[in-house]
Amino acid sequence: MVSVPEGFLFSAVSCGIKKEGKLDLGLIFCERKGTAWGVFTKNTLKAVPVLIGKTNLKEPFHRAIVVNSGVANAATGEEGIKRAEAVLKDLASLLKVKPLEILPASTGVIGEQLPLEKIIPKLSELVAGLSPDRAEDFAKAIMTTDTFPKIAQRTTKDGVKLLGIAKGAGMIAPNMATMLAFILTDGYLKKEEMRKLLSKAVDQSFNRITVDGDTSTNDTVYFLASGIKEVKDGTDFAENLISLAKELAYLIVKDGEGATKVIRVEIKGARNKEEARAFAMSIANSPLVKTAFYGADPNWGRILSALGKTGIDFDPQLVQIFLNDKPWVKELSVQTKEEDLRKEMQKNEVSLVVHLKLGKVSYEVLTCDLTEDYIRINASYRS
Amino acid sequence: MVSVPEGFLFSAVSCGIKKEGKLDLGLIFCERKGTAWGVFTKNTLKAVPVLIGKTNLKEPFHRAIVVNSGVANAATGEEGIKRAEAVLKDLASLLKVKPLEILPASTGVIGEQLPLEKIIPKLSELVAGLSPDRAEDFAKAIMTTDTFPKIAQRTTKDGVKLLGIAKGAGMIAPNMATMLAFILTDGYLKKEEMRKLLSKAVDQSFNRITVDGDTSTNDTVYFLASGIKEVKDGTDFAENLISLAKELAYLIVKDGEGATKVIRVEIKGARNKEEARAFAMSIANSPLVKTAFYGADPNWGRILSALGKTGIDFDPQLVQIFLNDKPWVKELSVQTKEEDLRKEMQKNEVSLVVHLKLGKVSYEVLTCDLTEDYIRINASYRS
Repeated sequence: MVSVPEGFLFSAVSCGIKKEGKLDLGLIFCERKGTAWGVFTKNTLKAVPVLIGKTNLKEPFHRAIVVNSGVANAATGEEGIKRAEAVLKDLASLLKVKPLEILPASTGVIGEQLPLEKIIPKLSELVAGLSPDRAEDFAKAIMTTDTFPKIAQRTTKDGVKLLGIAKGAGMIAPNMATMLAFILTDGYLKKEEMRKLLSKAVDQSFNRITVDGDTSTNDTVYFLASGIKEVKDGTDFAENLISLAKELAYLIVKDGEGATKVIRVEIKGARNKEEARAFAMSIANSPLVKTAFYGADPNWGRILSALGKTGIDFDPQLVQIFLNDKPWVKELSVQTKEEDLRKEMQKNEVSLVVHLKLGKVSYEVLTCDLTEDYIRINASYRS
Repeated sequence: MVSVPEGFLFSAVSCGIKKEGKLDLGLIFCERKGTAWGVFTKNTLKAVPVLIGKTNLKEPFHRAIVVNSGVANAATGEEGIKRAEAVLKDLASLLKVKPLEILPASTGVIGEQLPLEKIIPKLSELVAGLSPDRAEDFAKAIMTTDTFPKIAQRTTKDGVKLLGIAKGAGMIAPNMATMLAFILTDGYLKKEEMRKLLSKAVDQSFNRITVDGDTSTNDTVYFLASGIKEVKDGTDFAENLISLAKELAYLIVKDGEGATKVIRVEIKGARNKEEARAFAMSIANSPLVKTAFYGADPNWGRILSALGKTGIDFDPQLVQIFLNDKPWVKELSVQTKEEDLRKEMQKNEVSLVVHLKLGKVSYEVLTCDLTEDYIRINASYRS
């Protein structure tokens, strides 16, 4: 059961953007004047809702988040802005709030216009459906190639609730999150606090996952606080926020397009964070490493090659690799029977630790394997 | 028929590194004291033959190129160097040349040692088999996941011959070539001239192709001249060399692992070469673009998203896209019937021109589509 933070209502309807009457328009409503912050894609081609979201975040208060799936409203020019504004205007009027107080997000095909004729007539049904019990419907309404809705929740020692809802699946690569995530709390937080908290949480979670190295035009994380409860222990709140964001990030990788397993790549013993991150990302994004994990082929040479691909110096002789804590490679030779390594690689969760023995810095990222289903899903995404 | 430059002999044997008695050790012998230059991978993990090749190129003269497939001799430490040196020593003695005059190359699995017990006993057969007629056997001996041998040839107005033999298929991304290529000529060239000529040719060819964005540890291009004929027209020679290198680069992409089509990505109207190259590579390396081409899905939003992923500013409204010279996108709207675009995408050779209208600089790269077969080949490469 979803335990919803106080002050929030949810709704979802099917407008017919997605096929087969699936939910494709979702709404989160904050019953009070809420406070918000957001983090967005670094793709220079920013979708219309990203542009509008950035502007609207300058308002002091926020009342709602509206999200459609199926159409990204990216690369849609002036017409795309007009259409998004038309939706916000009608929705604001129904919700009796200002259009600027609504934060929009979209996900789906790039280059297609929002079908206003489908969306506008459904807005009153959307508003009428608002309820504290419909968070899961909202989570379903934002899915595209996702195979399951992604929800995470926490309660701090102070009894402050946090609820996170995300969608992911493909076009996932930092920076930054490359997905949509909405984190709601009934804690009271100032905008500036929310900015700092969210930035740290995103760095620890959504910026450390990758599916295919493709950065989307629509990545958005909104953080919205209804402000009903006092946050006494800020550290505890921050830890809960990070842990919730990490869980959502994990769920996104788990549902990576066509993925059969989550691979936790940890670089240890690096000289500094930049190098550790570059090494970790190079392994996590390598199609050859990802296909080897899919085939449960303990081809460790591909891991070393991915380290070298960064152009950063390291000593292959020193590198130690561990697979699910089993010693794999040391001094360039294999430490465990190949058959045992294969068995570890066949698991749904695989931990890969690469110790460089160069320094003391660690960095961890999550990735998934690359399978025929990724190809199938993306070769025919629009059809 | 292969028209071989004067002064060169070829041989190939099967040592049993590859399965089913396939050719896996190849030799090129220069009957005179030849001159050579080489260009190598930028991966910091350099394979043993790359390290030895770099050293040996300091010699004034060169007599042979020896290549094995099946084992990359990368990430093999001191033992890997010892084994490669043992091969060169025995081969040099049989060829009656100095070990330093032989240029080595390897391709195959990273992290495995050269099987000396298989290679050494076959060296006398390898040398005994030398003949001007066996260039094609040599080309077969260097193949791994390649499906066909790659040979290109040119003759200059002066009658100077050029012959290029390459292998590619996967782990193909600049910089640099990320494959093996051997270019032979009977023209007379000084080492310094060869360095300049090769560098320019590689920049125009092997540095402009990508299959999977993975840079190998073994990439090598050797350029070896027997020096029998005078090169009177240097410009003509350089043009022939570039054209030959481009043909080899094209053949490598055509044989990209699992690829069904070659995609020529050309950026036009960029502000400068760096930006043009970054835009072109971002499109060419995007799994989402590559799968869309595989599925013949004219999903142009993915192309715009790949432009934006570079983080470089551009105006999506200005972008014009052409598919096989048919207008595809202009002012963010589609110019040709979807069915016609699909038909163009179904061809084996697809040209994609993206005009940014920002400046006057163009840049072209070759890539291929991403298919289920890429996954199959690489999930089970070693088995």
